Amino acid sequence: MSYLTAMSSVRLFKSLPALTIRAKNGTSKASIRSGRQRTRPFSNSSQHMGPTSGHALHGFSGLSTSGTALSLPLIGLAACVILTLIPGNSPAMEAPSIAERDALAKRESGVTDSSPMRLRMEAFIKENQQKIVAELEKVDGKKFLQDTWQRPAGGGGITCVLQDGNVFEKAGVNTSVVYGSLGRGAIAKMRVNHPALDPDVESMEFFAAGISMVLHPHNPMAPTVHLNYRYFETAGPDGKTNAWWFGGGCDLTPAYLFDEDAIHFHKTIKDACDKHDKNYYPRFKKWCDEYFNNKHRGGESRGIGGIFFDDLDEQEKDQEQLFAFAQDCLGSFLPGYIPIIEKRKDMPYTEHEKAWQQLRRGRYVEFNLVHDRGTKFGLETPGARIESILMSLPLTARWQYMHEPEKGSREERLLSILKSPKEWV
Amino acid sequence: MSYLTAMSSVRLFKSLPALTIRAKNGTSKASIRSGRQRTRPFSNSSQHMGPTSGHALHGFSGLSTSGTALSLPLIGLAACVILTLIPGNSPAMEAPSIAERDALAKRESGVTDSSPMRLRMEAFIKENQQKIVAELEKVDGKKFLQDTWQRPAGGGGITCVLQDGNVFEKAGVNTSVVYGSLGRGAIAKMRVNHPALDPDVESMEFFAAGISMVLHPHNPMAPTVHLNYRYFETAGPDGKTNAWWFGGGCDLTPAYLFDEDAIHFHKTIKDACDKHDKNYYPRFKKWCDEYFNNKHRGGESRGIGGIFFDDLDEQEKDQEQLFAFAQDCLGSFLPGYIPIIEKRKDMPYTEHEKAWQQLRRGRYVEFNLVHDRGTKFGLETPGARIESILMSLPLTARWQYMHEPEKGSREERLLSILKSPKEWV
Repeated sequence: MSYLTAMSSVRLFKSLPALTIRAKNGTSKASIRSGRQRTRPFSNSSQHMGPTSGHALHGFSGLSTSGTALSLPLIGLAACVILTLIPGNSPAMEAPSIAERDALAKRESGVTDSSPMRLRMEAFIKENQQKIVAELEKVDGKKFLQDTWQRPAGGGGITCVLQDGNVFEKAGVNTSVVYGSLGRGAIAKMRVNHPALDPDVESMEFFAAGISMVLHPHNPMAPTVHLNYRYFETAGPDGKTNAWWFGGGCDLTPAYLFDEDAIHFHKTIKDACDKHDKNYYPRFKKWCDEYFNNKHRGGESRGIGGIFFDDLDEQEKDQEQLFAFAQDCLGSFLPGYIPIIEKRKDMPYTEHEKAWQQLRRGRYVEFNLVHDRGTKFGLETPGARIESILMSLPLTARWQYMHEPEKGSREERLLSILKSPKEWV
Repeated sequence: MSYLTAMSSVRLFKSLPALTIRAKNGTSKASIRSGRQRTRPFSNSSQHMGPTSGHALHGFSGLSTSGTALSLPLIGLAACVILTLIPGNSPAMEAPSIAERDALAKRESGVTDSSPMRLRMEAFIKENQQKIVAELEKVDGKKFLQDTWQRPAGGGGITCVLQDGNVFEKAGVNTSVVYGSLGRGAIAKMRVNHPALDPDVESMEFFAAGISMVLHPHNPMAPTVHLNYRYFETAGPDGKTNAWWFGGGCDLTPAYLFDEDAIHFHKTIKDACDKHDKNYYPRFKKWCDEYFNNKHRGGESRGIGGIFFDDLDEQEKDQEQLFAFAQDCLGSFLPGYIPIIEKRKDMPYTEHEKAWQQLRRGRYVEFNLVHDRGTKFGLETPGARIESILMSLPLTARWQYMHEPEKGSREERLLSILKSPKEWV
């Protein structure tokens, strides 16, 4: 599934980029390792943003600075920049980037509860990716293919794909970690939601880490599921955290609706939310219904929802509380989905039911290509890794002229619920 | 296929809408007939543009005037408006719309070579639609389903669909005729390409007529084909033609490339072009290659092209010459495509080849949903008839992670030609 889809969000993409990766075929690692190479914070986009051979990161180029070297107006402000001046090297001044700081911190003391949130989030999503992949492999019986990539300027990710499995037609579980820089325009747009962002800089380092997943099962009785949790942070020239926020969500897309599945899925998410704030579930459930909607189909939801949130920062709760919330949300995925897939994966089905699933997959394609802000952003980004962006698309889909479900059928009931989302718990 | 796709064009959609229809299920005609009903030129959008029960026209609402009654600033300018003042009826002044003029002219003297171009184009596309449908039915052996619709304010169309035929997986041949009004914003944008447009009016009547077609055959050896020819006109308050232009084109999308087919297809179109202007074929072939391109796939053409043109007006050639050109282009479709489909429709093929066709169909979906301006405009138009817009999508499509054709295979050769379009004649 797409790192851009992964990063999709109502507000994030008004202003913000998404993560995409350039995974390698096979599992070999890139030869240039992060933290071993000096980078210039605020340097040009071709260094920070552009594709590099075989294992680059994409998706942020629209936000990179247009300058070509150091952002001079910043120098006087940033003690650490001045401290790291390298005489005789022009453009000579290099401060350690947050990527370098993080790499050093990891080498020196590993990742602990007192590490910067960047490192804790990275460790958390990678650990959960492996846990989820292991559980899904148990369900499917086939192994995921894993592509690991690193990027020269810092960061990297893991793409896990299972295509044509026993249970899953197409399944992707991806993580990515990105260090880059934002230009003035992007900063101005982000300030709308995040006043902590310093408006008086030409450019700014950022960090983004996310896990993102789409599972399309073969059996039309088994629902498609999408999940994404992400953390975003900007750094001042001193390398200190400037603004930060969490976003994410998880939603279910059945072709045949089993009320007990919908209730179980929503209840599991609600329980995770309720531990943190009783308002979260109703608020983020509504946000989810509003976002994953095929407006061009007369306001038809993509699926039966779940939760969706973005831009949760210090205006919402403190960083520890929000991290704990994101952790519990992600933690609720396996107990929310595994019982459903186990119950449905081997159910008998007819050709007619398979065809209906294919039509619903067509709607999934429509949402992702027409409305999903992350996908759209990715497709418009030159050099983006299209195979990662479009991993969210199903293996097969169908469009039939003037298809209408029979009166009183299960198909018709699903459509009516998609037109007017239901409260499940 | 989509009336919006039909109307798609590089420049048209910078400024201009496309035609969509709201076809009825079945073949019944709308009960309100054009020309029997008084309409108010320059009246509000809900009358001119919005959906009406069961048989409305869509797709132009973004361009309608926002006023709610007559556009008063125009009254003093338009003799015919003053002549048709109806005392005591407020808003009282009704001039015959071009829809009414045309309906009257048709009733009184039919359509002849001296009729307005609007009527000649309408007659021409409808005649050719029936001719094409008849030929395709001979090829397929199954009948098209025909939906006829009319719209209250004037105009209408015919939707011909063949789904799951013997030869065609999905085939649509549609015509539509639209009378509507343009607002100041739309007029200003159109003036960029058409200086004849009067800049000093609040709104303006327009007419648009087009034929549009997409055929997706079952057999992977048989290519998909798309065609669209259209005529657009605006009228001054006196009902006289203000600006007018032709647009259109035809292009081929094979999954397996037979050079002889590509040469035959291009040669037939080139011959039609050459009769009118030796520069047309090279110019419009290039335009086609540029427009039907999946930029997000690293600049991969949708197919092997054909021609594409738009905004051909008096700056190009006179109206008669351009109409003759559009006629010859449309006339070249059957001799261009029928020999190809006859040769390929029953060729043996493997499962592997069918799967490759399905992947190419996925690319077709990507182009139409992500890039086609007509489709995009249609999807953004509230109340647009989605089934007509998305008729251009294939019945089935496929997305496979990291699919790469074998070295030296026919699939690989096709891809290399799509990346760098070839001169076929």
